[in-house]
Amino acid sequence: MNQIEIKGYGTALPAESITLNDQTRYRVSGEETQLTLAVEACIAALAKAQLSIEDIDCIVSASAVPVQPIPCTAALIHERIAMGSDIPAVDINTTCTSFVTALDTFSYLIDAGRYEKVLIVSSEVGSLGLNPKQKESYELFSDGAAAFVLSKSSNSKKGVIYGMQRTWSEGAHATEIRGGLTNLLPRFYTEETHDEYLFDMKGKQILSLVIKKLPKMMEDFYAESQLSIDEVDFVIPHQASRAMPLIMKKINIPEHKFSNLLVDYGNMVSASIPFSLCKALDSGQVKENDVVVLIGTAAGMTTNILAIRL
Amino acid sequence: MNQIEIKGYGTALPAESITLNDQTRYRVSGEETQLTLAVEACIAALAKAQLSIEDIDCIVSASAVPVQPIPCTAALIHERIAMGSDIPAVDINTTCTSFVTALDTFSYLIDAGRYEKVLIVSSEVGSLGLNPKQKESYELFSDGAAAFVLSKSSNSKKGVIYGMQRTWSEGAHATEIRGGLTNLLPRFYTEETHDEYLFDMKGKQILSLVIKKLPKMMEDFYAESQLSIDEVDFVIPHQASRAMPLIMKKINIPEHKFSNLLVDYGNMVSASIPFSLCKALDSGQVKENDVVVLIGTAAGMTTNILAIRL
Repeated sequence: MNQIEIKGYGTALPAESITLNDQTRYRVSGEETQLTLAVEACIAALAKAQLSIEDIDCIVSASAVPVQPIPCTAALIHERIAMGSDIPAVDINTTCTSFVTALDTFSYLIDAGRYEKVLIVSSEVGSLGLNPKQKESYELFSDGAAAFVLSKSSNSKKGVIYGMQRTWSEGAHATEIRGGLTNLLPRFYTEETHDEYLFDMKGKQILSLVIKKLPKMMEDFYAESQLSIDEVDFVIPHQASRAMPLIMKKINIPEHKFSNLLVDYGNMVSASIPFSLCKALDSGQVKENDVVVLIGTAAGMTTNILAIRL
Repeated sequence: MNQIEIKGYGTALPAESITLNDQTRYRVSGEETQLTLAVEACIAALAKAQLSIEDIDCIVSASAVPVQPIPCTAALIHERIAMGSDIPAVDINTTCTSFVTALDTFSYLIDAGRYEKVLIVSSEVGSLGLNPKQKESYELFSDGAAAFVLSKSSNSKKGVIYGMQRTWSEGAHATEIRGGLTNLLPRFYTEETHDEYLFDMKGKQILSLVIKKLPKMMEDFYAESQLSIDEVDFVIPHQASRAMPLIMKKINIPEHKFSNLLVDYGNMVSASIPFSLCKALDSGQVKENDVVVLIGTAAGMTTNILAIRL
């Protein structure tokens, strides 16, 4: 148990949304960027926490796609909200589950006293990399951001009860953007290679790997964490795809126990889980002392499961 | 004190090297890539540790520039060395000091028992992004990789004594590659925007910021860690530039106490510090029970200082 608690949280959405297949999807436009969304979410989280940036001991960017190859995204967020301070800035990345990995990892540093307060932010503009030829993913993703301020808790019942991550690289190429970095440099971009620089998702391959692997992982999670499904008050799954409710069924999470925001918000990549947690906190679906389980599958293919008592 | 120890380590260099200004620089060629270098270093580290990949509990990629926008680099390394396993794969990034941040961060998880053995690898092919018009950086960088296997130690004197990171975003644009990701998409690559997709380093601005900030940070490091310079057996600085010995002088590290591999290997970005540590271990410059301090400045601008007793 890593003794931490949520001090504040906030989200950011682009001003523009579109309707695709009767579902709402958000799209950055005008001056909006991955950074402006990140900054807006951070400022909202700090306000909710009634803290200023000077109270923060570490800024963690937990997004799938960085803003620039160099420097890391957290440094660019630092520039906009913490310039003049010496707060350390770090990126951590497991694609769609980056937020869960950041929460999991940094809960150890908070518990050990290395950092007292940590700001974790996930911000994504997936719409910029979608391929209109791939209808499934083109209609699935939204842009958005969410941030949390976490701190050491004096309540021994609050915090990360158990975290687990597994990576199955059989799925390494089931979800990818191949071009833009060292694998395929921007200078090789042409009309012919265009698609290599866009998001490529093999939905069926992912679904089949998740169905093969997740039930056993969930079983191991309960066994290792000594938690039972009855002790779990609510589940926040990554809003991965329309198959998400099916996956929840496969791991025996009843419908009233998980958040499903796909129709209204789509898949926000790494921002989906923290965004959904913000919504659940705001709506009262989850409250203090509840045991909440975050579950997400990510490109890699990586899966994270983490139980936190709020 | 996070009780960990080095079980094994390994490096990888491209087959080809060139001589620039009487200094040796390594360049990937043929089938060599950031991934092949990473894999070679990991395999060497596992061999030195007399372990197989199944013994590893987490694979951490600690490189500045990722291989692809999606998935994370650790998942792609996993695919080549750990396929079929479910070892978690995570990227952590603070640009040139990514290895130090990874060591610092994961030492908490090892100490707490979350992971017993962690493989950390830094691999860079900076040569692919250099701008021939910027002579200073064009002649400075090398490609290469280094990996370490770390484990929980039963010796209470071994491990990370103290870690410190500070980010000063006044320097956020002093070292950067602006294009390739969401800030400037590959599709905007043209002959005119070409330079935006290449490495851009403002050497004087970096040097002036380092000289302004590092001495105070070093002082704070000694005060907070309760270490004195006399207790430090050896310093491994990031092989940042020709000014590195000057920086060492500014923080009172005598010449015989720090590694200087710039002439023979150049700046390998995040791989420089772990590569230099491997060389110091191989040459006997550092040995068991020595207190070694890793110091690096990175794009961001971030600086890490970490003391480890071997």
